[in-house]
Amino acid sequence: MSKWVYRFGGGSAEGDATLRALLGGKGANLAEMARIGLPVPPGFTITTEVCARFYRNNREYPKGLRGDVEQALHGLEETLGRRFGDPECPLLVSVRSGARVSMPGMMDTVLNLGLNDETVEGLARRTGNPRFAWDSYRRFIQMYGDVVMGVDHHLFEEAIEERKTALGVDLDTDLGADDWRELVARFKQVVRAEAGRDFPQAPDDQLWGAIGAVFGSWNSERAKVYRRLHDIPDDWGTAVNVQAMVFGNLGERSATGVAFTRNPATGAREIYGEFLINAQGEDVVAGIRTPQHLTKAARLAAGDIQPSMEEAMPDVFSELVRLMETLERHYRDMQDIEFTVEEGRLWLLQTRAGKRTAKAAIRIAVDMSEEGLIDRREAVTRVDPESLDQLLHPTLDPQAPREVVARGLPASPGAASGEIVFTADEAERRAKAGHDVILVRVETSPEDIHGMHAARGILTARGGMTSHAAVVARGMGRACVSGAAGLFIDMERRVMEAGGRTFHEGDEITIDGTTGEVIAGRVPTVAPELSGEFATLMRWADGLRRMKVRTNADTPHDAAVARRFGAEGIGLARTEHMFFDAARIAIVREMILADNVEERRHALAKLLEMQRGNFLGIFREMEGLPVTIRLLDPPLHEFLPHEDAEFAQVARASGLDVGHLKRRAAELREANPMLGHRGCRLAVTFPEIYEMQVRAIIEAAITLEQEEGCECVLPEIMVPLVSDPRELRFVKDRIEATAKAVFADKGRRIDYRIGTMIELPRAALTADEIAEEAEFFSFGTNDLTQTTYGLSRDDAGRFLPIYLERGIYPADPFAHLDTVGVGALMRIARDKGRGTRGDLKLGICGEHGGDPASIDFCEELGLDYVSCSPYRVPIARLAAAQAAIRRQSGGQALREAASG
Amino acid sequence: MSKWVYRFGGGSAEGDATLRALLGGKGANLAEMARIGLPVPPGFTITTEVCARFYRNNREYPKGLRGDVEQALHGLEETLGRRFGDPECPLLVSVRSGARVSMPGMMDTVLNLGLNDETVEGLARRTGNPRFAWDSYRRFIQMYGDVVMGVDHHLFEEAIEERKTALGVDLDTDLGADDWRELVARFKQVVRAEAGRDFPQAPDDQLWGAIGAVFGSWNSERAKVYRRLHDIPDDWGTAVNVQAMVFGNLGERSATGVAFTRNPATGAREIYGEFLINAQGEDVVAGIRTPQHLTKAARLAAGDIQPSMEEAMPDVFSELVRLMETLERHYRDMQDIEFTVEEGRLWLLQTRAGKRTAKAAIRIAVDMSEEGLIDRREAVTRVDPESLDQLLHPTLDPQAPREVVARGLPASPGAASGEIVFTADEAERRAKAGHDVILVRVETSPEDIHGMHAARGILTARGGMTSHAAVVARGMGRACVSGAAGLFIDMERRVMEAGGRTFHEGDEITIDGTTGEVIAGRVPTVAPELSGEFATLMRWADGLRRMKVRTNADTPHDAAVARRFGAEGIGLARTEHMFFDAARIAIVREMILADNVEERRHALAKLLEMQRGNFLGIFREMEGLPVTIRLLDPPLHEFLPHEDAEFAQVARASGLDVGHLKRRAAELREANPMLGHRGCRLAVTFPEIYEMQVRAIIEAAITLEQEEGCECVLPEIMVPLVSDPRELRFVKDRIEATAKAVFADKGRRIDYRIGTMIELPRAALTADEIAEEAEFFSFGTNDLTQTTYGLSRDDAGRFLPIYLERGIYPADPFAHLDTVGVGALMRIARDKGRGTRGDLKLGICGEHGGDPASIDFCEELGLDYVSCSPYRVPIARLAAAQAAIRRQSGGQALREAASG
Repeated sequence: MSKWVYRFGGGSAEGDATLRALLGGKGANLAEMARIGLPVPPGFTITTEVCARFYRNNREYPKGLRGDVEQALHGLEETLGRRFGDPECPLLVSVRSGARVSMPGMMDTVLNLGLNDETVEGLARRTGNPRFAWDSYRRFIQMYGDVVMGVDHHLFEEAIEERKTALGVDLDTDLGADDWRELVARFKQVVRAEAGRDFPQAPDDQLWGAIGAVFGSWNSERAKVYRRLHDIPDDWGTAVNVQAMVFGNLGERSATGVAFTRNPATGAREIYGEFLINAQGEDVVAGIRTPQHLTKAARLAAGDIQPSMEEAMPDVFSELVRLMETLERHYRDMQDIEFTVEEGRLWLLQTRAGKRTAKAAIRIAVDMSEEGLIDRREAVTRVDPESLDQLLHPTLDPQAPREVVARGLPASPGAASGEIVFTADEAERRAKAGHDVILVRVETSPEDIHGMHAARGILTARGGMTSHAAVVARGMGRACVSGAAGLFIDMERRVMEAGGRTFHEGDEITIDGTTGEVIAGRVPTVAPELSGEFATLMRWADGLRRMKVRTNADTPHDAAVARRFGAEGIGLARTEHMFFDAARIAIVREMILADNVEERRHALAKLLEMQRGNFLGIFREMEGLPVTIRLLDPPLHEFLPHEDAEFAQVARASGLDVGHLKRRAAELREANPMLGHRGCRLAVTFPEIYEMQVRAIIEAAITLEQEEGCECVLPEIMVPLVSDPRELRFVKDRIEATAKAVFADKGRRIDYRIGTMIELPRAALTADEIAEEAEFFSFGTNDLTQTTYGLSRDDAGRFLPIYLERGIYPADPFAHLDTVGVGALMRIARDKGRGTRGDLKLGICGEHGGDPASIDFCEELGLDYVSCSPYRVPIARLAAAQAAIRRQSGGQALREAASG
Repeated sequence: MSKWVYRFGGGSAEGDATLRALLGGKGANLAEMARIGLPVPPGFTITTEVCARFYRNNREYPKGLRGDVEQALHGLEETLGRRFGDPECPLLVSVRSGARVSMPGMMDTVLNLGLNDETVEGLARRTGNPRFAWDSYRRFIQMYGDVVMGVDHHLFEEAIEERKTALGVDLDTDLGADDWRELVARFKQVVRAEAGRDFPQAPDDQLWGAIGAVFGSWNSERAKVYRRLHDIPDDWGTAVNVQAMVFGNLGERSATGVAFTRNPATGAREIYGEFLINAQGEDVVAGIRTPQHLTKAARLAAGDIQPSMEEAMPDVFSELVRLMETLERHYRDMQDIEFTVEEGRLWLLQTRAGKRTAKAAIRIAVDMSEEGLIDRREAVTRVDPESLDQLLHPTLDPQAPREVVARGLPASPGAASGEIVFTADEAERRAKAGHDVILVRVETSPEDIHGMHAARGILTARGGMTSHAAVVARGMGRACVSGAAGLFIDMERRVMEAGGRTFHEGDEITIDGTTGEVIAGRVPTVAPELSGEFATLMRWADGLRRMKVRTNADTPHDAAVARRFGAEGIGLARTEHMFFDAARIAIVREMILADNVEERRHALAKLLEMQRGNFLGIFREMEGLPVTIRLLDPPLHEFLPHEDAEFAQVARASGLDVGHLKRRAAELREANPMLGHRGCRLAVTFPEIYEMQVRAIIEAAITLEQEEGCECVLPEIMVPLVSDPRELRFVKDRIEATAKAVFADKGRRIDYRIGTMIELPRAALTADEIAEEAEFFSFGTNDLTQTTYGLSRDDAGRFLPIYLERGIYPADPFAHLDTVGVGALMRIARDKGRGTRGDLKLGICGEHGGDPASIDFCEELGLDYVSCSPYRVPIARLAAAQAAIRRQSGGQALREAASG
């Protein structure tokens, strides 16, 4: 029989940190902390397995759970000498969720559970603080009413406001014990009216209600959205942690706070965090009161006058620092700690690997490696490759003029410009329409997640560095400025006032999450500086990876950017993009609309010079490296005019009749262009097009060597959309004949290779024969995904979101390579291809080439390289290194380890 | 070293009938006949392997060939006591092509080779017949000039016409020895002028010229077209047969003819054929003189006055009959024999399995089995399943009035109506535009092949039962009336006159190839009678096959037709076809354009009744059999209006604004509908559509049992376009819930199955998991071919013909299943599917289900059934039997055996 409940506290625990999957992150770490002797309030964890079974079995608990919980509760009562529901010495507990990976703010928590009309009196007597007791009770009813019983929390807040108005006071702190007692009575009326039943008085009923609510919150809409955005499987489930309450709100000797062992924004080795005196933990995280600094240095730097914890509680602060050092050494990673001080005694409520910016992650990994805490391999695994995206994009040009209208906290680094929007829905709407938006809120809540994801940046008027907005924005890699004090937001009128100016929805602003500045209008940007720890970590990664990283680049500019980012060649140069240039498209159209081979050759002769120039430019940037050029791929009608004016223009240029041109264009239109007359099918019907392209490639390569004295590039000529070995053979014969002709013309030879895309299932299935003709394969996983699934990327928008939402597809197969279906074809192609040609070079040039999860699969397949867009090259370098390390260490799940 | 040359004649031979692949059909049978002692003019065969090497090696002959040919020629000279080029006793030979399978009229032949200015005199002396000698010489120059030297044959004919005009005579027979001698001189001038060189005098030069021409003719355009139409590989090559000449034109005791051992049109056991006295073989085949009957009975039946061979040459006729019996017993198949009588002596020039109509093939197979010549298994393999198509279509309604305007020979059975066209190109053009056409020609030639293929029927004014038109039409299964005497054709004016009426191109006529009637206008038809030998053979086939044969039928009518043809259930009922009915399409459009679920449900409720009615009709016809129903598959926009008038109609009916409707329709349009929002993707976004359909299916099945007391059908509910097991699971859950709801409503349960199409590569690759949800798989090989190749059937027309022409694809993958790529996925799906579910039912419902070659592959895969259109059900039954026999006899190539 399974063990459903694990106890911890008092210097020992049944679980430990390795049981993260079973106990959740919070539960595993509570057990671990108890086990190594840290001061953790005792409690127990109900496993994630219970949650998974709960959902599998129609929301019923496994047998035996109730007994196990009762037993654990009795154990807790004995440890603490208090009893659940005892009017004299009541045991109070918190009930919190805790999943395998952190989902901040996503799931529900209930505090002060165990209070009722009798025990509240006992608590008052025991603490000698009736105001605290009644305040705690009303907080419990308020939280429980909201979370478990579904009562709108505004109703409770209204009741408090009414009371304050009646008394003529402004602040909660102006209310005394009797006020809270009366409010408790009022709250109970609200609950009865809204929920249709009384607030439960029996602590056991309270407990099971809270446990059910935590499990229920796993499947709330906002939790499901969060999981989808973070690729967290639905069947992991959450654990429930039941823990004895400690109180940070028992008076001036009590406090609650959050502390990081290093700075999560910069990675600097310093104590970082916030605390509030006489408060409960939720007060810090919710961002309602602006908290105080932990260290004096931080307070001084911020010019704050409220004393820091170091100054206000020097002894407890010293102990906190000592425990933090212990924890970081124990976990060998930066920790994010929640603590409470109850009447001078320090309790740790939670520790976990702290979320951090990409910049901080890099600095912490490099520092820890240099401090000897971890080795370089581990340092390389500590940075999420995807997060590098934050660093690779331009930052605000320091020389550019800027009108700063407000300042807030630098909550998540990076700069972002965009249109102001005031709601998450509007953010999503405008982002879908292709606009950059900045989401502006008084404070954010979990309901805003989709809008934060859609926005370029987030700006809030309230909340600290660990507020919801700040934590989520850092996780998502969005720029964020939080707690911008000079900001006034009028949601009704959809207006923001700052720096004496009024901004309406749609007006543009810029925020700088690195400095906390809020700026009117758009500010120009400059390229990122990629040195220091970043360069160090990338160097370590390069030393550890097996796969090469190339880039997809169609222009000399893109090639240059990619080479600066470390690209080791071009994996995909799309020749058609060179055709769209305004000056060229007319000639391309002339070529397409030609009525016969002669006319077509005439137009192609003009294009030859232009393409040769393009290739020469790209080859110069890639001197000494291989460059894979894909011959013309898209259906010809993509180049044709659509508008009447364009037709008229082509008619003038070509001397042909508009009617004739339109008929010809209509003839070329296709029912399913994706599966139509494109790729090497064009070369079978119009061989002269590829002949021109091959001539341009070979001539450019010879020119580079001969006239410019440059080191050679290795042109790899890639034939797209091959479905059969004879098809490749047909095209290859013509490529070789053209190359031979150019060699004869120029009196000089160069090396080149001929290979093919593997982007159709049939190419994968006949890869053994195709490899007889091809010197390399490049997996075109965009098209291979489309054909394997029978799914057009252009049309999937109408149903793919529903597939993801309902979990029918675990992920968007265009974002993350489908290792099951598409991957099976890739495996077949690899095995068959290498069976024929042992040294067959294998690469990938679909957009998956820049996706870390897909890169991991490419390493598993043994590909020689991945190719991705220039800005993703560093991401791919790091991901390739991590994949190689993962393979060497037997495929252990490093992602989890990194986040644990 | 290879043996390039095989000799035969004089009672022995180096080859035999088993060497068909090496010696070609003609060569192998000449060797076989010589070997069993039949009177065959001696000769030798140059192998097909020489031809294959010739093309592989840049049109060079293999080393050693010249020596081998010289040696064989010497042998021939010794056998006959004549010498090549000997002015006294010259050896004359024929040089003919002979491929592995017969390609009538496709390749070149040269007769009388060895004649020159000297030997012609020797021949005249030896035969005592100078007219014959000079006539032979001029024929030789004419043929050789045309075939080897590329001189337009009209030039020779013009010269003859001039001569006749000058002499004031009408017929060739009016020309004497001197006339032919002068024409020889004239012909030589023509050759010199046209070919730019003299007609070769050295017999060796003549021989190698002819051999080269025969090999060259293998790659003529018309031969390539023929091979493509008949799926004959390009690399088989042709053999060359060099054989001593015998002469049917030495006078009234000489003759030449063609004889069949049974009637090739009806299969009746009777001597059948034609002959011409004092003629060379080509005169019969070319259809220029109308030949005489072989038997008296045939002559009398035709009301002919020219004596039959039986009457004119009774002794030779008796010997011919004896030899024919020997041949048929030896080959155990109906033989098509070419013979020549040289001054009273009978020579056999060729024997081969005779081409026959489907009707004859069936009768011959059944008769021979009943005669004990072959067993039933062999009888079943003797009929080409594809040929049954001729028998399954309607024939002219005997009750219908008909205006017969001409009569000709019943050259290929079946009736056909269509527009008159006078050229092959016009036939092809109109057929492509969807018109039925009848190709009308004075006589046909190999250049007309593509037009004959495009036409429904062929009508000629000249030529006999074995003319080019007749032979080719029978092979293709086209109706043909040949030698229609009362027909006058004016090619210039494109006019045909018959029965006192004038017909222009485009006017409609009907021909009846079974009676020889030519009828004005269209004549109504009646369903075919499928009894007698046909029923017997199909019964034998049914006893031998393993796979079931189902049909694709969407209406009760189609279901009834198919059941009459022997369908054992429905493999594919497409539910969408039921939506296109004029009365329904408006409701379907209402459903699609609905703005919300309620409106959609409202429209669906109306469709429910209609669909239930459809299913009930189909179920009634299929009582007791399984019926597979595919839920809605096509993209919804296929149902939407395109024309303004249609939009207006929908707007009136729905009360919606036209602009709104057009916008909605535009929103639904897709870039690649084939890969878009269709199949079960519709069920994920609009579950209510499938719910309606499932309800209609289950209610109809219950009604049939409950109210009509019929034996149950087994509804098999098929989910299209599944790409992932979870997707099928999602849809299946809803199907089951709906079925359960109907059972509850009706208080009665029925059996039903849920399965899926395997029509996407990913479905095949995840078939193990899909089989956990599916009780059956049906391979949708149309879509599977499209996605495996990345090839849209709608768009392939622009390049697929070129792929076939250039041999890049060996066959159209939509006509014949691609066993390499698509087949590999089917194998994977079978192995994975049956691995999960041992009794998984497997079928095919793509159009390949009615293609014999594809059916053979289905047998190899071990499918449980094939499903095809109603008219192809008998074809599939026979093909499935042959496939089963082939598997049992170890896969030996029965197709070849059947044609050998």
